[in-house]
Amino acid sequence: MLTNIKPAKKLTTNRNNYSCHNKTVKILFLCGGTGKRMFPLTEDKFLLNFLGRTLLEHQINLAQKAGFREFVIVGNPARMARIEQSVSQVKHASIELCEQKKPLGMADAIVQAHPHLHSHFIVVNPNDIFDISAYTNLLAAHEHKGNATLILSKKTDSYFPGGYLITGKGNVVRKIVEKPGAGKEPSNLVNIVVHLHPQVDALIEIINKQPKGNDDIYERALNELANRTGKLHTVIYSGDWIAIKYPWHVLDAIRFFLDKSRTRVSPKAWVSSSATIDGKVIIEPGVKILENAVIRGPVYIGKNTIIGNNCLVREYSHIGNNCIIGFGTEIKNSYLGDRCQTHMNYIGDSVIGENCSFGAGTITANRRLDEKQIRVKAGAELVDTGKDKLGAIIGNNCRTGIHVSIMPGIKIGPDIKINPGTIVKRDIISVEKT
Amino acid sequence: MLTNIKPAKKLTTNRNNYSCHNKTVKILFLCGGTGKRMFPLTEDKFLLNFLGRTLLEHQINLAQKAGFREFVIVGNPARMARIEQSVSQVKHASIELCEQKKPLGMADAIVQAHPHLHSHFIVVNPNDIFDISAYTNLLAAHEHKGNATLILSKKTDSYFPGGYLITGKGNVVRKIVEKPGAGKEPSNLVNIVVHLHPQVDALIEIINKQPKGNDDIYERALNELANRTGKLHTVIYSGDWIAIKYPWHVLDAIRFFLDKSRTRVSPKAWVSSSATIDGKVIIEPGVKILENAVIRGPVYIGKNTIIGNNCLVREYSHIGNNCIIGFGTEIKNSYLGDRCQTHMNYIGDSVIGENCSFGAGTITANRRLDEKQIRVKAGAELVDTGKDKLGAIIGNNCRTGIHVSIMPGIKIGPDIKINPGTIVKRDIISVEKT
Amino acid sequence: MLTNIKPAKKLTTNRNNYSCHNKTVKILFLCGGTGKRMFPLTEDKFLLNFLGRTLLEHQINLAQKAGFREFVIVGNPARMARIEQSVSQVKHASIELCEQKKPLGMADAIVQAHPHLHSHFIVVNPNDIFDISAYTNLLAAHEHKGNATLILSKKTDSYFPGGYLITGKGNVVRKIVEKPGAGKEPSNLVNIVVHLHPQVDALIEIINKQPKGNDDIYERALNELANRTGKLHTVIYSGDWIAIKYPWHVLDAIRFFLDKSRTRVSPKAWVSSSATIDGKVIIEPGVKILENAVIRGPVYIGKNTIIGNNCLVREYSHIGNNCIIGFGTEIKNSYLGDRCQTHMNYIGDSVIGENCSFGAGTITANRRLDEKQIRVKAGAELVDTGKDKLGAIIGNNCRTGIHVSIMPGIKIGPDIKINPGTIVKRDIISVEKT
Repeated sequence: MLTNIKPAKKLTTNRNNYSCHNKTVKILFLCGGTGKRMFPLTEDKFLLNFLGRTLLEHQINLAQKAGFREFVIVGNPARMARIEQSVSQVKHASIELCEQKKPLGMADAIVQAHPHLHSHFIVVNPNDIFDISAYTNLLAAHEHKGNATLILSKKTDSYFPGGYLITGKGNVVRKIVEKPGAGKEPSNLVNIVVHLHPQVDALIEIINKQPKGNDDIYERALNELANRTGKLHTVIYSGDWIAIKYPWHVLDAIRFFLDKSRTRVSPKAWVSSSATIDGKVIIEPGVKILENAVIRGPVYIGKNTIIGNNCLVREYSHIGNNCIIGFGTEIKNSYLGDRCQTHMNYIGDSVIGENCSFGAGTITANRRLDEKQIRVKAGAELVDTGKDKLGAIIGNNCRTGIHVSIMPGIKIGPDIKINPGTIVKRDIISVEKT
Repeated sequence: MLTNIKPAKKLTTNRNNYSCHNKTVKILFLCGGTGKRMFPLTEDKFLLNFLGRTLLEHQINLAQKAGFREFVIVGNPARMARIEQSVSQVKHASIELCEQKKPLGMADAIVQAHPHLHSHFIVVNPNDIFDISAYTNLLAAHEHKGNATLILSKKTDSYFPGGYLITGKGNVVRKIVEKPGAGKEPSNLVNIVVHLHPQVDALIEIINKQPKGNDDIYERALNELANRTGKLHTVIYSGDWIAIKYPWHVLDAIRFFLDKSRTRVSPKAWVSSSATIDGKVIIEPGVKILENAVIRGPVYIGKNTIIGNNCLVREYSHIGNNCIIGFGTEIKNSYLGDRCQTHMNYIGDSVIGENCSFGAGTITANRRLDEKQIRVKAGAELVDTGKDKLGAIIGNNCRTGIHVSIMPGIKIGPDIKINPGTIVKRDIISVEKT
Repeated sequence: MLTNIKPAKKLTTNRNNYSCHNKTVKILFLCGGTGKRMFPLTEDKFLLNFLGRTLLEHQINLAQKAGFREFVIVGNPARMARIEQSVSQVKHASIELCEQKKPLGMADAIVQAHPHLHSHFIVVNPNDIFDISAYTNLLAAHEHKGNATLILSKKTDSYFPGGYLITGKGNVVRKIVEKPGAGKEPSNLVNIVVHLHPQVDALIEIINKQPKGNDDIYERALNELANRTGKLHTVIYSGDWIAIKYPWHVLDAIRFFLDKSRTRVSPKAWVSSSATIDGKVIIEPGVKILENAVIRGPVYIGKNTIIGNNCLVREYSHIGNNCIIGFGTEIKNSYLGDRCQTHMNYIGDSVIGENCSFGAGTITANRRLDEKQIRVKAGAELVDTGKDKLGAIIGNNCRTGIHVSIMPGIKIGPDIKINPGTIVKRDIISVEKT
């Protein structure tokens, strides 16, 4: 069923003949399903832009830093063009693209990618953000444990809706329990999908034995592997880990990437002598920062964006390309996609898609009057975000009139227009996709 | 019926004995009827101030540049004092004022002015804005065509509610058709009232023959002249032409005058060292520009006006005398009359009369959410302004409370007070004068 | 009934043995009843902070400047801890504290303080603000008139709800008429409670003769003294006098104290090089003034307060300690208590208690659209404030949402939360305490 094997050289760019013990270990990125929980953001998570690159590019770059040079990406057919466009920016890498025709889950994705894979490989969910120690720890354990399957895990304090590991002596994994429910966690170790498989054929064989029509074939295959061989081990990861499940996790991702970055002001940017640039900032080519604007880092400003007079951009904000941040706007700890326009606004603790425009005086409230934690409706769920400051979550192509007030944690969009003077107290979404 | 012939010397000021072939050609300015379509602006159009002078003064100055020194102004009795005050500022000109007791139209105005006129003269509607080539082209044609009556015209692409010319060979005018209606234009040449008459007595004679009680006696007289003598010609004008019919044309007039002007910052103005002055600006004596304000030309700022802290004034804006532009206001492509006050406002693409005051947070929306062109009610008509950005049109002596929102193309005033928090979606006018 | 005589030395601090004719004259401060008319401000007036000190401290400091060193303070038991804390800051003074167990009025307070008083003393209402000439004039008259009782008075033009003096030759007081009502004033001399009594025992004796259960025992005692001895005189005071009766008088008090103060910028404050400090300002240690902020004095800014980017603070404003004046806020002629937070607000001509927080875009209107004088409901009364500019009066611990509009003269609080977008047209008070 493999449909679209592109010759590896197509995307091989200036690759040095780099000598590295793990150069033959391929990374398999699973760029499959869209995240319904991310609505009204409609972009695949791994295609979200951070600091001028997609999350997928960041993933490849991170793996490159860890010494990997060969990548296989499995994606759904509708996304392949965008994936290809995204990774075409990456240098010194051999990247093979592979379609997964139907969204049949992780095990199927590995099966689809099988022809691209050699004996051992690492399968990665690129929607999870982690640091280089995830790879280096995994490789170090692989040196010791030879032919064991290694799965990354992290100790957590609060419930996470993923897989929990039951382990024995020496980090042997006995069982993976999927989404046990809060209070029923069998351990404090959560499975992170950065898994090293030493023998692809053996894995495929076990996968193929599992009954079809199930969501969790991959996890059941791992459990069978554990039962049968005892050769399933975990490597405990202690670095930062951000699983982008809900839109507000984008704010955590900004923080992650900005914390890891360095100040960089393009010589092709224009900064008024009366503007203030303070702290860690990344300012891309073509940016204009007008008089009396203040950029108080950590802040990222994308290409050709204009920061207007007397604006303030501060505290882990990320503004995309070709935005116009109009007169008197404050942006604080927010993510704005490309081509957004603001004017005398306050955008705080908010996540905004592409091509949104805010009428003068539109304000996002980012705190409840009772100062309680903010809960967001996600489908039928009412999710406690764990944050006492959260603004709006707005999809692509929205417009607000003047003097619009948006309450904390409200979701809008995509493609929504909001009349002037509206106080938005409930989510306004065109098509609820849950 | 001539009632108020003032001795020419009264308004003759320092006139040099200037030798010029056309020094004996007088210009007759028709300062007659008020423009109902300009409501809620109630000022006569020729008395509107641009760059510190009335439109009438600009007209006289332009004619002076073309070599004219003698002017006759016909106006209605109620306006004569203001006309006299306005033109008393003009130097090196002989100006005669003449009342038209009743508003009986253009032909009657010429009849009233007859005692002031010599053989040939140019009659001008001073509400139309044009450049010096209107006069120089007319005079050049007069050199060639001797005793023909010459009327200025302009080629237009879209319908204009004025007179259209039917012409023959050699720019001979056969007929003027008044307001034919869109789609029924007999040509693309629109009559501009800058007309050279070589023989005043002959014109008066034809006028007097026309049946009374008609609006368009003057045009019928011209048509009879064309029929009888064949000596009615047009001179096609290709410069800028702005006919101030509707209030938003004031914005076009600002653009015209600012484009033709040069930067001039009075040494009697005070500009904070932390303010920014950029581009073409005219700043009059007594102006104060406070800290962190930005003036981004083309911009005009009238006498004694204060531009407050952290304000932005930009893009073809015109602010009258003795205004206070309070903290944090942005003014973009707008006209403000004298003695206006703002405070944390956005005034965009708007036309504001005198003595208006805006509560903090009042905002003019200047764009529809659907981005369509903006239509304005003018009397019974709904006029398409041809603009996709247009703010408010506000007459003299209006006040808004705090947090007022004014929708695009809305008309307010004069003498209207708007309660705090109002979203103004319909025109609010004291007395509809249509 | 004297309950709590603290040894004078307890609060005596570094007192020099200062030789002065009046060093034995004690000042008795009446720190008794709370002011119901001050609601929603709940702080005792004499404990309000101005320029970093309570009004009571200011009173003691003023008296010290006039040469006094010994003070007795009578207060109600609930306030004694705060009074003691306040006056513990005062140096070079001997201060005795004395409880008045029940709120039985001024005569009772003097009786309670009797054990602390020597032969002659001055009784002072510390809620009235006056300058040093009140004391120096009183003492000068005392030199001349020896054993007369002296009461300070001031000529007034408009009705004041206090006591009026009927006087005879040589400033002899014949009678005090309490609150005669507007239009029924027996003179233009209003009693200011800065009274010098030459013989405390004689006074107490007369007080004790008065029938109990009356509000005005003290005034009746003075009237009896006048009748019996003829030794009641007035000293007419011509300096500034501010009687803090209603909350808006706090604004007058700011003006008084700022006018009397000098510029003082703490070296422990941080002022951005792009901020503007202009006019008379007092900036306390730990203050931060961020980029493009403008402080246009007279202005006081308390300890550790942050003035954010592009803010404007101007014209007799007083901001307490530990406030955060957020981006784009303007504060004009207003009093803010400690720990207030603003954000893109306009606070004009307003009095704000402690620990208040204003959502982005909250605006206080400070002027009626009809420009009439502003009236405020105080209990059942509708009081004409005599001001055409007055903003909001807000008690401690209030919160407003975003885009709240507060009408002129509105009272809010304490402990009130106002929903986003509300237009506050009526007082919102938790418990009406009138």
